[in-house]
Amino acid sequence: MSNIPKIVILGAGYGGILTALKLQKQLNYNEADVTLVNKHDYHYITTHLHMPAAGTDNPENARVNISKLIDEFKIDFVKSTVVQIRTQDKKVILEDGTLSYDYLVIGLGGEPETFGIPGLAEHAMSIRSINSVRLIREHVEYQFARYKREPHRTDYLTFVVGGAGFTGIEFVGELADRIPQLCRAFDVDRSLVKLYNIEAAPSALPGFDPELVQYGMDVLTKKGVIFRIGTAIKECSPDGVIVGDGEEIRSKTVIWTGGIRGSRLIEEAGFETMRGRVKVDDYLRAPSHENIYIIGDNSLMFNEEGRPYPPTAQIAMQQGVTCAHNLVAAIRSQPLKTFAFSNKGTVASLGKGEGIGVAFGKKYMGRKAAWLKKMIDLRYLFIIGGIPLVLRKGKFF
Amino acid sequence: MSNIPKIVILGAGYGGILTALKLQKQLNYNEADVTLVNKHDYHYITTHLHMPAAGTDNPENARVNISKLIDEFKIDFVKSTVVQIRTQDKKVILEDGTLSYDYLVIGLGGEPETFGIPGLAEHAMSIRSINSVRLIREHVEYQFARYKREPHRTDYLTFVVGGAGFTGIEFVGELADRIPQLCRAFDVDRSLVKLYNIEAAPSALPGFDPELVQYGMDVLTKKGVIFRIGTAIKECSPDGVIVGDGEEIRSKTVIWTGGIRGSRLIEEAGFETMRGRVKVDDYLRAPSHENIYIIGDNSLMFNEEGRPYPPTAQIAMQQGVTCAHNLVAAIRSQPLKTFAFSNKGTVASLGKGEGIGVAFGKKYMGRKAAWLKKMIDLRYLFIIGGIPLVLRKGKFF
Repeated sequence: MSNIPKIVILGAGYGGILTALKLQKQLNYNEADVTLVNKHDYHYITTHLHMPAAGTDNPENARVNISKLIDEFKIDFVKSTVVQIRTQDKKVILEDGTLSYDYLVIGLGGEPETFGIPGLAEHAMSIRSINSVRLIREHVEYQFARYKREPHRTDYLTFVVGGAGFTGIEFVGELADRIPQLCRAFDVDRSLVKLYNIEAAPSALPGFDPELVQYGMDVLTKKGVIFRIGTAIKECSPDGVIVGDGEEIRSKTVIWTGGIRGSRLIEEAGFETMRGRVKVDDYLRAPSHENIYIIGDNSLMFNEEGRPYPPTAQIAMQQGVTCAHNLVAAIRSQPLKTFAFSNKGTVASLGKGEGIGVAFGKKYMGRKAAWLKKMIDLRYLFIIGGIPLVLRKGKFF
Repeated sequence: MSNIPKIVILGAGYGGILTALKLQKQLNYNEADVTLVNKHDYHYITTHLHMPAAGTDNPENARVNISKLIDEFKIDFVKSTVVQIRTQDKKVILEDGTLSYDYLVIGLGGEPETFGIPGLAEHAMSIRSINSVRLIREHVEYQFARYKREPHRTDYLTFVVGGAGFTGIEFVGELADRIPQLCRAFDVDRSLVKLYNIEAAPSALPGFDPELVQYGMDVLTKKGVIFRIGTAIKECSPDGVIVGDGEEIRSKTVIWTGGIRGSRLIEEAGFETMRGRVKVDDYLRAPSHENIYIIGDNSLMFNEEGRPYPPTAQIAMQQGVTCAHNLVAAIRSQPLKTFAFSNKGTVASLGKGEGIGVAFGKKYMGRKAAWLKKMIDLRYLFIIGGIPLVLRKGKFF
């Protein structure tokens, strides 16, 4: 029996894939056994999912086969679904097997948080995976086709996006671009189509620069988006939503982007959590578990003002890098590094050729922001897969 | 007031469009006022609809704007839906107006005949128009997307085509070709997808050459089609169908191609009908109505053995030509021509590169039949729109 330490990484999202890639680079031959577990045999680029969800890009451009990213001579890949994490036994139960670990990295990603709003979990769709965005795209197209056979059912042509955070805003931007195409393809009068974006907070993109928020809303309003800001969804049913002031919006298509929580598996594993997220220590480890690292949407960290960092791809990637460093250091009995988030800025797309963002301490809007967003996407492809991946999946126009 | 005779043509299907095109050519200046009424501003090529229904071709290739076909200086086109035909008043009531006529041509096309099978009218889709085939295409894709989010629901991946006549057989041929593409696009295991073709008659393509029928069924079986021949659908529900021997096939997608009847408008107008079709005289006129011609799926004619001709594009087109001739002759007080159907043969496609058919007194199968089918399609485009239409809409590969 080998006494090589076993590292198991759960989840090949931004955090998990970066951890795996860095470990693959930094570990010496036979220094550790690394196993990456993921539900799918592909990694997907969550920040790009709003496009295939709206149908403005092919879902293939939002995913990469894991076998193209990792070196399977160095890292074992297991395609399976995690069922249970048993910290006392140092085991992970998969739906079709069991893995033992010495070090565990939990990067299982988030789930939609519906805040107990009745009907939302049952009747709303969410933008969270390749399968879920293909469902949204097909669902939207299907409503156009159904409307043409039942022309009195204008509710088929009403689309409700709950939440005007980054995902919500980026998605309505794409869907607003897509609607005129769908109207042409299905011979539907554009004026019959309604696209609502509903946000309970007093502003879209809460916490973002107000001037940029205003610019973004103006752009989207011109594209036909109907905003209901400061308006909560009270209830969701198969027939639509009821909002704060009692208004009923009849719709067969509700897409919820209003919140993310951590994973139920973490709660079930006995960690202390807030909405399925574990407050990790400065080295990204779970409290009282020196051998368990928690990253990405499953981790909770606070900034200097004591506010939690929002779960973004950017922070997950940086955590992956630190996590890999600390795993190698732990194995070598070297000192660990504390994690410090370095904010590179934030850019949101608003559909084709439009965007808003803050980067390098400056504000951007319009074409320049859209271009910046594309550069960020290409940079990510470069980080995980080098030039070949950029050329294969990158969007340059 | 002019005393130029008014000709109103209801429906721009095969029969109506051929009548209009021939009248446009044969009538002299100011010899008659011709008005063509159609629900859509496009003519569609019904014999091509099985392809866009399956998603193997774009619906745009199955329709042509009527304004591209007729000369609007010679023929008035009215886009409207016919509500009532009042033969005593010589008027047609449209949903947004009224038209008076001296001569009427009824070519309103058929409707699905469900033979009173419970649930079929409510829960099955049919291949009958651009809107209906877009619905089928979107519905099928949607089931793949839904399955990926609810992987226990294999009934989403079961597709039932009722009827193995020409439409049924051609449609399953295309859908069998499309399924592997959809499996790839949605990451679905092909072995989970079931495609049933159910026919109550003791043979597929009843009345067709038995050797060709056997060849066709072999081709389609190899493509994965599951035949239930000599098996009636007893009942259709939102959850699937129950067939003759009590077998329940669970499915969310039932497409009914098992029968065509005439138009309810004709029954309501007081004509004597059999399943919405009027037995016309040798000149294609309705009994006791010398000024009303009935063509296409709305007409009933018997061959020399006393069996009704099946409603096909071929007979409708030939009727359109004779109808136009007789209208011109009637206006000019010249003798009318009797209609005689000249059977040019029949070819059915079985998906890409495969087909069966009888033409020029010979049997064809495989690539040659598929090529023949394409030639027939191109010939039709040429007849109605000349070389430019062939180049615009023709499929050459």
